[in-house]
Amino acid sequence: MTAFEWTLDAADGSARAGTFTTPHGALSTPVFAPVGTQATVKSLTPAQVEDLGAQMVLANTYHLFLRPGDELVAEMGGLHSFMHWNKPILTDSGGFQVFSLTKTRKIDEDGVTFKSHIDGSLKRLSPEISMRIQENLGADIVMAFDECAVPTDYDYSRLAMHRTHAWARRCLEAKRRDDQALFGIVQGGVFSDLRAESAREISAMDFPGHAIGGLSVGESKPDMYRTIAEVNNILPANKPRYLMGVGTPEDLIESVRRGVDIFDCVLPTRLARHNSAMTMHGRLNLMNASFARDELPVDSECGCYTCRHFSRAYLRHLVNAKEMLAATLLSIHNLYTLVQLTRDMRAAIIDGNFEQFAQQKLAQLSIKETE
Amino acid sequence: MTAFEWTLDAADGSARAGTFTTPHGALSTPVFAPVGTQATVKSLTPAQVEDLGAQMVLANTYHLFLRPGDELVAEMGGLHSFMHWNKPILTDSGGFQVFSLTKTRKIDEDGVTFKSHIDGSLKRLSPEISMRIQENLGADIVMAFDECAVPTDYDYSRLAMHRTHAWARRCLEAKRRDDQALFGIVQGGVFSDLRAESAREISAMDFPGHAIGGLSVGESKPDMYRTIAEVNNILPANKPRYLMGVGTPEDLIESVRRGVDIFDCVLPTRLARHNSAMTMHGRLNLMNASFARDELPVDSECGCYTCRHFSRAYLRHLVNAKEMLAATLLSIHNLYTLVQLTRDMRAAIIDGNFEQFAQQKLAQLSIKETE
Repeated sequence: MTAFEWTLDAADGSARAGTFTTPHGALSTPVFAPVGTQATVKSLTPAQVEDLGAQMVLANTYHLFLRPGDELVAEMGGLHSFMHWNKPILTDSGGFQVFSLTKTRKIDEDGVTFKSHIDGSLKRLSPEISMRIQENLGADIVMAFDECAVPTDYDYSRLAMHRTHAWARRCLEAKRRDDQALFGIVQGGVFSDLRAESAREISAMDFPGHAIGGLSVGESKPDMYRTIAEVNNILPANKPRYLMGVGTPEDLIESVRRGVDIFDCVLPTRLARHNSAMTMHGRLNLMNASFARDELPVDSECGCYTCRHFSRAYLRHLVNAKEMLAATLLSIHNLYTLVQLTRDMRAAIIDGNFEQFAQQKLAQLSIKETE
Repeated sequence: MTAFEWTLDAADGSARAGTFTTPHGALSTPVFAPVGTQATVKSLTPAQVEDLGAQMVLANTYHLFLRPGDELVAEMGGLHSFMHWNKPILTDSGGFQVFSLTKTRKIDEDGVTFKSHIDGSLKRLSPEISMRIQENLGADIVMAFDECAVPTDYDYSRLAMHRTHAWARRCLEAKRRDDQALFGIVQGGVFSDLRAESAREISAMDFPGHAIGGLSVGESKPDMYRTIAEVNNILPANKPRYLMGVGTPEDLIESVRRGVDIFDCVLPTRLARHNSAMTMHGRLNLMNASFARDELPVDSECGCYTCRHFSRAYLRHLVNAKEMLAATLLSIHNLYTLVQLTRDMRAAIIDGNFEQFAQQKLAQLSIKETE
């Protein structure tokens, strides 16, 4: 079975260009993974996801556990076969969704009991159950089961962090498949002492990769960027670093600048379903009547399928007429924008001019915000 | 400008294999055109429509007149450019939608005044207005403005037929663009004398192609098939024949058997959005729990993208989880099924064994109807 190896191809300041091997191919980092919550990147075929340059997709353990069930996915040959995606897949642990999607839940030291958001039935997740589900799903990268606290509540953050550490050890114990890499997750809210403690504890457990959890959930941008830097100063440099659930162009640049390698986020596809295009010059709301006769593409500098072939006028018509193709074409564009940004950052790191690249792009992004 | 030429490549009984040239390429008939009502085949990119083998798409004059407006489409370079479809396009005249979609309408000898189904505003269509709109849209094949009556009401069918003939003459007068072929439409409900009169009248006007309108709107199958045969016995053999709005596999076979060359229908994409797969062995409703662990593709004999890569279990999951990809994958499959059927019929006609092919396929289709 392929080892999970991390190679640092180049570094520029704290920004890194690396390669991480998996049984379904190598990831060139920085990398952005589109989210396929229910074993589909919403509104796109896997062929379209591959065409726009995605190297990896994320799927959600919580959702697939509830529907169609991880055992069914295993019977169908695992997620790669089920959803016809032959490149790397990452599954989260279900932890974040239990804490963000369910109304009724009871946490104990062993795990969490909650009501399914689909049918209200009582379900349970624990480190061992999460690992078993993720083994059934069969992703290349799997995540330790963690507790995501309110990031600005110190006492709760501390409690959740300690539980996360105990659960991380149990996930390591419960893990069985050699063809899956288990990443540990650093928690601790926006508190420097907790994050430092968590980064040290998790690093000591010798995971093949590390994630920063519990950010981009309501804290301020300065708190988020500071926390990323503090954690990455402690995490070992010889393993990949994954910032969970982050996905604006600004955040990707600021995070790569602080040593992050891997990203995922629902934002590009969610914005697409709400008629919004992400560009490196700000966002466009395609519902806007000002685009009705606009022959330009969403972004004249973009090379995606949507921008190569369709005008803002056409997209505005699709949005206005409530056509499904609007979500598809905007999803392609938004995902391409982030994927291309990670490619450009990688090139800049390798060329040794990342800081110049970052400043130029951040300046562009701050000039214009249309919505 | 390319002439609109019809070549008969082969005939087998009444079934014909032909070629019809247009400014955007030649159609090999029999041909099935997916419907792109609002300048999009619902849930599919034009690349996907092309990949599944479609030679032509239909767009609706009524819908595009109301939204985004034919003048806007003309400003954007016409429909081909607007929707990025570089093969032939056919637009209907708006007649059928005025009679099927609007609640309040007033017909006079000059045209029809109706309330928009979108915003209730008062709009008007007439032969001259329909031709002007279709010129703005810029399709390769455009249709005469007709009145579609209740097919089993003799007096109304007779009245509507006479109005259709008068309007057909006015469309010929009003037509200006040399790069558009105007087809005349035969009406007359299910009444042999009216259909014969209409077929003779319309044939005499020397259109480059003919359509049979007002069928598949509630009449019995025997009435429909008989009417097709009666009309095609009168229509000249040296021009293409288009049966409007017909799209089950059975109807395509029975109609080609009676001399039809061109088809369009919303059925494949509409069924797809209602979780239903068309196959040459009957229909499958993918919502059905019996497919939950079914590793087979929708149709093991089908070569479409969906059947080559996805199981019924995956499609059932997508349907159950209300994922947009379900409509996309089922639309690809359903359209491919009809496109492939027309290809197979063409090959059988050229090989001189159409009748055997037709009987075998009709027997298959009658064995199993799952839903």
